[in-house]
Amino acid sequence: MPETIPQDSVGLVQPQTLHVDQPLELECGRVLPSYDLVYETYGTLNADASNAVLICHALSGHHHAAGYHSADDPRPGWWDSCIGPGKPIDTNRFFVVCPNNLGGCHGSSGPGSQNPETGQLWGPDFPMMTVKDWVKSQAQLADALGIQRWAAVVGGSLGGMQALQWSMDFPDRLANAVVIAAAPKLSAQNIAFNEVARQSILTDPNFHGGRYYLHDTYPRQGLILARMVGHITYLSDDAMRMKFGRDLRSGRFHFGFDVEFQVESYLRHQGETFSRNFDANTYLLMTKALDYFDPARECDGTLEDALADTRCNFLVMSFNSDWRFSPERSREIVNALVQVGRNVSYAEIDTPKGHDAFLLPIPEYRKLFGAYMGRVAEATSNA
Amino acid sequence: MPETIPQDSVGLVQPQTLHVDQPLELECGRVLPSYDLVYETYGTLNADASNAVLICHALSGHHHAAGYHSADDPRPGWWDSCIGPGKPIDTNRFFVVCPNNLGGCHGSSGPGSQNPETGQLWGPDFPMMTVKDWVKSQAQLADALGIQRWAAVVGGSLGGMQALQWSMDFPDRLANAVVIAAAPKLSAQNIAFNEVARQSILTDPNFHGGRYYLHDTYPRQGLILARMVGHITYLSDDAMRMKFGRDLRSGRFHFGFDVEFQVESYLRHQGETFSRNFDANTYLLMTKALDYFDPARECDGTLEDALADTRCNFLVMSFNSDWRFSPERSREIVNALVQVGRNVSYAEIDTPKGHDAFLLPIPEYRKLFGAYMGRVAEATSNA
Repeated sequence: MPETIPQDSVGLVQPQTLHVDQPLELECGRVLPSYDLVYETYGTLNADASNAVLICHALSGHHHAAGYHSADDPRPGWWDSCIGPGKPIDTNRFFVVCPNNLGGCHGSSGPGSQNPETGQLWGPDFPMMTVKDWVKSQAQLADALGIQRWAAVVGGSLGGMQALQWSMDFPDRLANAVVIAAAPKLSAQNIAFNEVARQSILTDPNFHGGRYYLHDTYPRQGLILARMVGHITYLSDDAMRMKFGRDLRSGRFHFGFDVEFQVESYLRHQGETFSRNFDANTYLLMTKALDYFDPARECDGTLEDALADTRCNFLVMSFNSDWRFSPERSREIVNALVQVGRNVSYAEIDTPKGHDAFLLPIPEYRKLFGAYMGRVAEATSNA
Repeated sequence: MPETIPQDSVGLVQPQTLHVDQPLELECGRVLPSYDLVYETYGTLNADASNAVLICHALSGHHHAAGYHSADDPRPGWWDSCIGPGKPIDTNRFFVVCPNNLGGCHGSSGPGSQNPETGQLWGPDFPMMTVKDWVKSQAQLADALGIQRWAAVVGGSLGGMQALQWSMDFPDRLANAVVIAAAPKLSAQNIAFNEVARQSILTDPNFHGGRYYLHDTYPRQGLILARMVGHITYLSDDAMRMKFGRDLRSGRFHFGFDVEFQVESYLRHQGETFSRNFDANTYLLMTKALDYFDPARECDGTLEDALADTRCNFLVMSFNSDWRFSPERSREIVNALVQVGRNVSYAEIDTPKGHDAFLLPIPEYRKLFGAYMGRVAEATSNA
């Protein structure tokens, strides 16, 4: 934590856990008999529970979206740039809820937690999750918190897909969906990159068929490779050029397989750090949830058909240098929403930062995001 | 081989080997005491040896560029679409030479061949190669074949970089350089993808520090992953969409880690096939040669400085859907050549096929390529 907590921080925060003792029927056909959802909240729920905002996290995210866990926490939550007093998601006005998704590795039921029916760790037996399953479990959380209708459901990347799914599955339970740097489904290239990441993990000799917990090890190399390849897709070519260019680590070539270029050093280091903090089985589940997301297929029709019964208003945002989910993919969503007569605002942000931009404090992005959320807050207080 | 050899094929061909008993000083500071270069030739060298064309291969290429090795050869050489009677590189007019690069795994001296000084396999002790080193060894081959000056040096991708290097290192020994789908140096993103591929191989437990030959194994999984990630960069997003879309292999989701989508099946299969036919140490060397290529740095100046002493004419070609080495990268080369007053023709081919396009029989590409080579042939016969 910085020496003093910044004025615009939500400050010290504590995770909470909801235990749901009700079976959750999943899209894969299996049933979770009971489950835990760990979550954080920021701000205060108003009397009529009309100011609640749900934050949905992306592939490697979790429930800790803003603030600090302790006085010596080196950094704040993953979306601290957008959540806090006076920030786009203004905690002076909103009650913000961010859960860790099922299948995660930060406290919610997942491969690393206990299967209540066997007393053993789930490991690879944890059921495959889909975006639809997550939304269903998030609705249980809303019920438990007394939130009948979200002022907004908000997310970037895989989180944006959850916001979109909310608008389809519970059209009466949200007033706004904010869908950032997302896509209506993965492209073959997106799936291909996910598959490389999965194969890296699945073929690591320390994976042990997903039962590495029992061997007191984990597929470190597989996770490093998976993260390295993922990381490349989160940055734009330009962002990498600006950040690293062809800079050499030691100033000259040494003609070996040790690091020559800064970019190699950076990727290895990021991969290494990630491998120590993320569970391999969770990584596998999250990439599969991405692959499966396809509302049009789900309803056996077009994206317009899938979105036909939505009722909320939408803000869709994309970043022009994002090549993972390019603006074109966001415009597919926007066009379908316009077709079915929804209120949809669309902003394409000019930045060289690539897909990662949705996590960054980019002035134009924050301004537009904040303006939209300001209107959401006003509608809420006038309701 | 097809039941009858096509009219426009060079037919049955046989590799030859040049043994060079002269030391080759390398950029890395080491010396190859002697070496073998395996190569193929197609067509007939004319009396004044003025009709010779050198083909430089790319990362996973080799000397077998056209024709068939035997009557039951299932497919022709890797650039058969462009080399043969009446094809862009017309073997009725040109004497075509294609060597396997040093460090390769198809017959030229490389990690899998014997170190003449120790009698052992080179393995990881084979020296690091650069594009400049390859060009130097190719000049030895030209000498041995009595070719003082190439009518053209031609290559795609890493092969195009060799053509460019020829124009700088031996300005009097080529009349034309044909540089296809190349770049004047790798970007940080290009290096990053190479690094993922290398780490896949280097961390495979069957790599054994590059001495897997002694353990009667090879880093199969590492090579599969390396090829999978490479393969994604060779195809455009559109090409993948057209080829696979989101087609499922079994028609429905089965919610497991086996193949769900056709694109996964394709990449795994391609990677598997590649891993059986390519040497891991060679793959490492080839990716490093790509990373090191940077003529501007070499001359401690700009690309214009590097190209200032070139004399040949240039044809530069790029493909609009190539995101590995985009048209922008080719235009950097073209602009620098124009700056230093060279004759340079530039064509940007409209195709959704991505980087791989340079290997494919795309009508517009073949037509432009053939027209340029036709003029090269005329200049040769008028010389």
